[in-house]
Amino acid sequence: MADPTSLPLTRASVLSAHTLITPFIHRTPVLTSTYLSQLASTPRAAAELEGTPWAGQTPANPKIRFWFKCENFQKVGAFKARGAFHALLRLVESEGWEEGGGRERGVVTHSSGNHAQAVSLASATLKIPSHIVMPRISTPAKIAATQSYGARVLFSGSTAPEREAVVAEVITETGATLIPPYDHPHVMLGQGTAGLELQEQGTGIVVFGAEPEFEGADDCKRGLAAGKRIEAVKSLTVADGLRTPVGAWPWKVISDKKLVRGVYSVTEEQIKATLRLVLERMKVVVEPSSVVGLAVALWNEDFRSVVEAEQGREEWDLGVVFTGGNVNLEGLGKLFEAK
Amino acid sequence: MADPTSLPLTRASVLSAHTLITPFIHRTPVLTSTYLSQLASTPRAAAELEGTPWAGQTPANPKIRFWFKCENFQKVGAFKARGAFHALLRLVESEGWEEGGGRERGVVTHSSGNHAQAVSLASATLKIPSHIVMPRISTPAKIAATQSYGARVLFSGSTAPEREAVVAEVITETGATLIPPYDHPHVMLGQGTAGLELQEQGTGIVVFGAEPEFEGADDCKRGLAAGKRIEAVKSLTVADGLRTPVGAWPWKVISDKKLVRGVYSVTEEQIKATLRLVLERMKVVVEPSSVVGLAVALWNEDFRSVVEAEQGREEWDLGVVFTGGNVNLEGLGKLFEAK
Repeated sequence: MADPTSLPLTRASVLSAHTLITPFIHRTPVLTSTYLSQLASTPRAAAELEGTPWAGQTPANPKIRFWFKCENFQKVGAFKARGAFHALLRLVESEGWEEGGGRERGVVTHSSGNHAQAVSLASATLKIPSHIVMPRISTPAKIAATQSYGARVLFSGSTAPEREAVVAEVITETGATLIPPYDHPHVMLGQGTAGLELQEQGTGIVVFGAEPEFEGADDCKRGLAAGKRIEAVKSLTVADGLRTPVGAWPWKVISDKKLVRGVYSVTEEQIKATLRLVLERMKVVVEPSSVVGLAVALWNEDFRSVVEAEQGREEWDLGVVFTGGNVNLEGLGKLFEAK
Repeated sequence: MADPTSLPLTRASVLSAHTLITPFIHRTPVLTSTYLSQLASTPRAAAELEGTPWAGQTPANPKIRFWFKCENFQKVGAFKARGAFHALLRLVESEGWEEGGGRERGVVTHSSGNHAQAVSLASATLKIPSHIVMPRISTPAKIAATQSYGARVLFSGSTAPEREAVVAEVITETGATLIPPYDHPHVMLGQGTAGLELQEQGTGIVVFGAEPEFEGADDCKRGLAAGKRIEAVKSLTVADGLRTPVGAWPWKVISDKKLVRGVYSVTEEQIKATLRLVLERMKVVVEPSSVVGLAVALWNEDFRSVVEAEQGREEWDLGVVFTGGNVNLEGLGKLFEAK
């Protein structure tokens, strides 16, 4: 589907995507948290920085006010509903698709969870059969949810090549159209509508990226340093939605300094500590991948120094997308089990 | 403090309480859930009723639309903030209190958690010293939170007599005024403001009670059957906010059929299943005690039959107060640990 007929990656295309998907998605709320904004606006103790890359430095002193875009309250519990609906709606309106039997052949994708549920819901809504390839180690709740919307679920290994092999088989067998989990302009434009709403709901326009650093999941940051996209990652970071490498299409955007100012990473412990803060203080359920951006703002001294240097006299309004809330309660329990 | 100068338990007193506490509390949101409303409006399978008191009966077929008053988003994470602020504000305005040295002597209470945090916050806000007696087995997070607002925390055993003995010692030592956790008109009137807001926010006026049945925690239901309040309970129900018996003052209200139509109970498994639904489907963090009302609506066939019989052609709008969100993540993990 990543073909020449795709829309260009422009603001106008995001606006057009938003108009198209609005009847099918929630306009999710934006929450604030006095506690978390104060925490981010307090310099960390020098002792806390010992044993980190920032040991001995003066702790950064940024002033931050958070605006949390709650895509955990989105349909299927994640922002992925936006991209799936957009990609499918563009497919439906594409020339010759209906007449050529596209609807009967259906769609196929692979995903560890949220995109799977999103494609299952969107295709059921639009009355298109769907085949979803999920890693065998996906959480039972995500598998059950994907099936509950109506998709046929097939299983594969966990790596990208293993998933893609099963997808190829499905395509051979059914002629289904691939809806990639992230590496496609229409999917990206749909996801971009979350940022559009957040901007309308009140926040600024400098963009940063965030990722886990565990077992090489910081492929984007490393790719930027090397000047070349890293194409394979095998990480079991607790942020299970962020285990795959950045795709070729997203890379074009992220590697453009004018579009994304920088990408920062955090440790597993920082992700867990942040997850605890959101659950205990904000009382909203988010999945570990959702809090990686907030974790950067709280714990990454490089990012915090950039904010301090650039904010001038005014605090920064920092928009953070809580990307999803599909936690596995058993997994959450294990994460926080008493020592 | 349960003295003749207390306000009467009338709607006018609740309105007056609301005016008084409004500057200090959040007007919490009311959420809906299509999924949970549909689940409550679907008859349970006959097979599900086997082994329950309703085996062999035709499953009830009520039509219910839920309105969830989210007091988990309230200050201190629970509706208890309302009662604590109200009781303390009435104390401050009571004749002779300031002049007689009441402020210096401070206040005292006992609570397993949420009332403790509420009194700690309210007294710190109003600059009154507070002494809080907590059971030794209280969760560390609740103890830490109570201390963080500024109260002096003392420990006791878990039963009501054990708690009250330590409270008596504090009173002897300091002359502090007791702010009871529930058994006082001013506390009740403050808590009642949650219902007032829910009514303004759109729901009806027949009132039901809900409680756990584990180890006799259904003292209210049993008391109603016996025609006499049950004064002692020793239950370790997972709904840890509901382990104490109904107080004498609340009993006056609850035992009046014109005010409370009925009280229903649920099992530990039903509470856990409901907690899972709220966390996974609504993506909001609530504590086990919060979901007992919803559990009754979903699983108690006696209650469901009453709704079916009374609703006529229109579905019922059912307001449920999510009373608090102060979960212990370690405890939550244990609750849902993989088998």
